[in-house]
Amino acid sequence: MIEAASFGARLGVAFERFGHLCVGVDPHPYLLAEWNLPDTAAGARDFGLRVVSAAAGTAGIVKPQVAFFERYGSAGLVALEEIMAAAREAGLLVIADAKRGDIGSTVAAYGEAWLTPGAPLEADAMTVNAFQGVGSLAEPIALAASAGKGLFVLAATSNPEAIAPQTAVIGRGPLAGRSVAASIVDEVRRNNANWVGDDGLGPFGVVIGATVHLGDYGITAADLVGTPILAPGFGHQGAGYEVIDGVYGAASPGAVISSSRAILAAGPTGVRAAIETEANALARVFAA
Amino acid sequence: MIEAASFGARLGVAFERFGHLCVGVDPHPYLLAEWNLPDTAAGARDFGLRVVSAAAGTAGIVKPQVAFFERYGSAGLVALEEIMAAAREAGLLVIADAKRGDIGSTVAAYGEAWLTPGAPLEADAMTVNAFQGVGSLAEPIALAASAGKGLFVLAATSNPEAIAPQTAVIGRGPLAGRSVAASIVDEVRRNNANWVGDDGLGPFGVVIGATVHLGDYGITAADLVGTPILAPGFGHQGAGYEVIDGVYGAASPGAVISSSRAILAAGPTGVRAAIETEANALARVFAA
Repeated sequence: MIEAASFGARLGVAFERFGHLCVGVDPHPYLLAEWNLPDTAAGARDFGLRVVSAAAGTAGIVKPQVAFFERYGSAGLVALEEIMAAAREAGLLVIADAKRGDIGSTVAAYGEAWLTPGAPLEADAMTVNAFQGVGSLAEPIALAASAGKGLFVLAATSNPEAIAPQTAVIGRGPLAGRSVAASIVDEVRRNNANWVGDDGLGPFGVVIGATVHLGDYGITAADLVGTPILAPGFGHQGAGYEVIDGVYGAASPGAVISSSRAILAAGPTGVRAAIETEANALARVFAA
Repeated sequence: MIEAASFGARLGVAFERFGHLCVGVDPHPYLLAEWNLPDTAAGARDFGLRVVSAAAGTAGIVKPQVAFFERYGSAGLVALEEIMAAAREAGLLVIADAKRGDIGSTVAAYGEAWLTPGAPLEADAMTVNAFQGVGSLAEPIALAASAGKGLFVLAATSNPEAIAPQTAVIGRGPLAGRSVAASIVDEVRRNNANWVGDDGLGPFGVVIGATVHLGDYGITAADLVGTPILAPGFGHQGAGYEVIDGVYGAASPGAVISSSRAILAAGPTGVRAAIETEANALARVFAA
């Protein structure tokens, strides 16, 4: 297992050993049908355990999409708990794609749910939503730093409806003039400096889609150096790996490249080979 | 039970019968200790069932805070399922305060989790997060409208860190010049017109804290008429009921006034009386 270090350090180890691929664990109903599994919590469990087994030893990171488990209610979370435990036991870093957000003691409770060592839903990192301000996330930020866990804060996402609110310009406070997305990047970087202060990757990352143009948000790649970047939007959502350098530039060494449906569409017998194919393709891009 | 109608219509019936109070079901660890309950899923279950029992017949609406159940993992969601079923059986409208958000089929899965009739986690409405744009919520919007359910979209929240991103000004698209919060209000109102088209309350609401000044966001009370407003921020968070007319003005008839800790601090033996006290205080404000 990758343990006993900050999340940024553990992420760096995963990159070195296995490259930048992050395998999505997304039991979409249509994928369950393609895999000949029932659209139930038990089906999602079997699906997830199969993906974890296929990823172990080939990829370093998996990202379960919490919504597809929550869809079954508490039984779905039982399945997710089992899948995440199996993944961590196999040495995979687990990013729970939960996109949780709230304030004060409420968002603290979300942090405790997903980041407390020994908790049933323990992951290595989770995605969070800063619509209520990055400052609203103070409690999970402190918890993550103290527990060796990570956070990925949504910043510039790849869906077209997100462009208007995420490029909106802040008019007051110390970040006046920055876009909403850029202000999140700035505050995350500041938190990394506060909590880590070294030259490696910090524990706090951002989500920036592969189809965005950083310039539209007033973000430069230099703003992102040292900040882990969770990068969805590849494959099914339209971008090829060849865009990585163009989008993330100097920050690419911190990029977690998420691929889900392109891998999962290979089915239960093809998923391991699909993961190897994607990992090799990414390795070529990062070596270039 | 309040059934067989749109969420807006059911909300209107709850207002008429019981007034505007919404009782929070927030099993904070410190409250569990005060109630002599263990900090476990079983303790949260007993807490929630007691609050539901105390609210039934006095208040029309309860709002479980999902984070405090998720904190226990799947066992916490088992407790929450039981509490929400008991509340709906008792004729209470249940707003699941989940603040979920994502895109496409992922956010559709969150909607299915909480709004599908017969689902284990079925609520009457849920809170959602539009950081990725109100358009990203198209799937749960369609589901809610077809199933008689409701959504409350975070717009202008009461925490100070939220002011900068929520007052940020959109620079592109049809809502250019509007603040992020105002753009959400506009899009929610448009959805209400699309899906309902009557003069009553629509199924889609917004969350606007009691401590905000609408003018700071470029929102007027007239923008909100017909849109349900979930209004946290009373009691513990600082506002008294006397501010309601000043903050929400002509939109006050659609306001769901949420009170949690002020009620829950009364303890298991005092919670029913505390709910009556708050309901009566609110009734006087709305009658004035």
